[in-house]
Amino acid sequence: MKPVEWREGVVRLLDQRKLPTSEEYVDVRDAVEMAEAIRALAVRGAPLLGIAAGFGMALAAGGSRARGAEGLLRDLDRAGRVLVASRPTAVNVAWAVHRVGGVAREAVSGGPEGVRRSVLEEAFRIAREDEASCAAIAELGMALVPTGARVLTHCNTGALATGGCGSAQGIIAAAHQAGRNIHVWVDETRPLLQGARLTAWELQRLGIPMTLVADVAAGSLMARGLVDLVIVGADRIAANGDVANKVGTYQLAVLAAHHGVPFYVAAPTSTIDPVIPDGGAIVVEERDPSEVTRPFGVSLAPAGTAAANPAFDITPAQLITAIVTDRGVARPPYRQTLGRLADRPNEASSAPPVRTQASA
Amino acid sequence: MKPVEWREGVVRLLDQRKLPTSEEYVDVRDAVEMAEAIRALAVRGAPLLGIAAGFGMALAAGGSRARGAEGLLRDLDRAGRVLVASRPTAVNVAWAVHRVGGVAREAVSGGPEGVRRSVLEEAFRIAREDEASCAAIAELGMALVPTGARVLTHCNTGALATGGCGSAQGIIAAAHQAGRNIHVWVDETRPLLQGARLTAWELQRLGIPMTLVADVAAGSLMARGLVDLVIVGADRIAANGDVANKVGTYQLAVLAAHHGVPFYVAAPTSTIDPVIPDGGAIVVEERDPSEVTRPFGVSLAPAGTAAANPAFDITPAQLITAIVTDRGVARPPYRQTLGRLADRPNEASSAPPVRTQASA
Repeated sequence: MKPVEWREGVVRLLDQRKLPTSEEYVDVRDAVEMAEAIRALAVRGAPLLGIAAGFGMALAAGGSRARGAEGLLRDLDRAGRVLVASRPTAVNVAWAVHRVGGVAREAVSGGPEGVRRSVLEEAFRIAREDEASCAAIAELGMALVPTGARVLTHCNTGALATGGCGSAQGIIAAAHQAGRNIHVWVDETRPLLQGARLTAWELQRLGIPMTLVADVAAGSLMARGLVDLVIVGADRIAANGDVANKVGTYQLAVLAAHHGVPFYVAAPTSTIDPVIPDGGAIVVEERDPSEVTRPFGVSLAPAGTAAANPAFDITPAQLITAIVTDRGVARPPYRQTLGRLADRPNEASSAPPVRTQASA
Repeated sequence: MKPVEWREGVVRLLDQRKLPTSEEYVDVRDAVEMAEAIRALAVRGAPLLGIAAGFGMALAAGGSRARGAEGLLRDLDRAGRVLVASRPTAVNVAWAVHRVGGVAREAVSGGPEGVRRSVLEEAFRIAREDEASCAAIAELGMALVPTGARVLTHCNTGALATGGCGSAQGIIAAAHQAGRNIHVWVDETRPLLQGARLTAWELQRLGIPMTLVADVAAGSLMARGLVDLVIVGADRIAANGDVANKVGTYQLAVLAAHHGVPFYVAAPTSTIDPVIPDGGAIVVEERDPSEVTRPFGVSLAPAGTAAANPAFDITPAQLITAIVTDRGVARPPYRQTLGRLADRPNEASSAPPVRTQASA
């Protein structure tokens, strides 16, 4: 199962809006179509959005009619702006566009064909790096999952959100495959239900024992001693270890602390943003209220009901037991330990677009 | 708007399954139909279920063909068993059946017509008492709501759940009517969405400013300083002040304590069960997993997904700032303060049926 696949001039996307009811694919042929697919959430998940944007740039390069390298660069610039505007708060899109754009400029001496080749290679490199990063996170994080553990997770952090086995879910899958005999509590993750629709679907395919619960049940599961650890992904990690992630993450962290349950975050080092000093500097995306009042075409609330729909929340570092990255497991004090792992500012930090965090 | 109304031999129920999309009424003509309406959740809410059951007994008395008082008592007995079985864990149904049955037995000397009259009078008395109880709770609880308060509530505790203005919601409405300039955060309350469907509908009709949120947003609202107090209802209160209420209540109480936000419970004294020493003795009803996986006809999770669906949870007394009852506001230590308010064992406690708590 590949959520994003390059097929010579076409990018095939597994349409995540249709899951789990049906497995449908959409073929995307240029950067405008890719931007539309991102905006419409056919493709989602912070690392996967970076990969999709990289291939979107490759589509733009392949489809450009420019005869010279400079004209091609201008076309790529235009495509990049369209892609970044698709989800203005999704830093991974901007990060990938910036990275591919930089490589294109460096390849200008090779002429348009040299630029096209470099762009496609860089898009594949972003995808390969994310796959490797997932594998490293899974390997390092497994040590935190005891035999027989009952693991609670939130949102979707698996193969549908990344270029590999996932971040938090990659650890879960690795522990399962190592015979650790684990059981997963899957938070349904309102309002968009990534847990019920996507994580449940992935865990089912992987044969990992799980039970879906409404988000309201997490606290009482902990109170009844039924949760041994919580593990979630991240959309952006500030220099001090504060974590922006799917709304609901913060209250899980408070509940875990209250019950003495370890609370882990898993994410690639590219998610660490050393330029952001703490979570207070991260702007939280507010999404369409209809995701709350009228999900999946069903009117739940009366007409005219006002709803707030923050897509993310900020979990302060002091509630996080450890942060698992592809380069190592960081423990408090995070300013030091994360600083050592992210020894260079990540490339996204120097990208111009909006300074908020990413993904659905 | 009357959710349960006696109309000479017919009980008209506002069908709560259809709200807020449409306001439809169902006419119930005997105890079997009433039991079916309760089972199907056309009528819900702990105190309102007691009222519905009382009128269900009155329908049985009116419809009985028994010529003598003893035969009528046997018919009432049979009707009571059908009603109690409709929701075996709903203590209010059993409580009302027991109360009406007792009055019927005492009226036997008046013959079948005397029994019929007493039964109907007792059903009306239950309804009137609950209305008065709501008014007393609202009046006493208002003192806890400062001007300009941002109030967070969970589930539905209004006119749709009681025989009056509500319990927690009655306080909210009274504070609004007193010009306190309040704003309400309404938890949508998965899985059955009583917040989104019923509370939003009631508050809209009352003109009370409110914003609906997914349950996952409550923690971050508190972290951002946007919640001044939390107020919820109760399905059963143990002698030590532990409270059984809609699932999700417990984690709100943990979050409120973490943020120093007052956490109030509002319920009639009949909800206090002095026979139950603490929350550990309360069995939590587990409902159909399809409420989580397939609500309102929309398949959210993949086929075959296992789901847990506890309908209630237990909030320990030490997380509760105060309990507002119709007889006064209790503060810790609850064993003493609640004991004084509930100076006699409530009638439900001596009822034979299942010792768990109630309502949807």
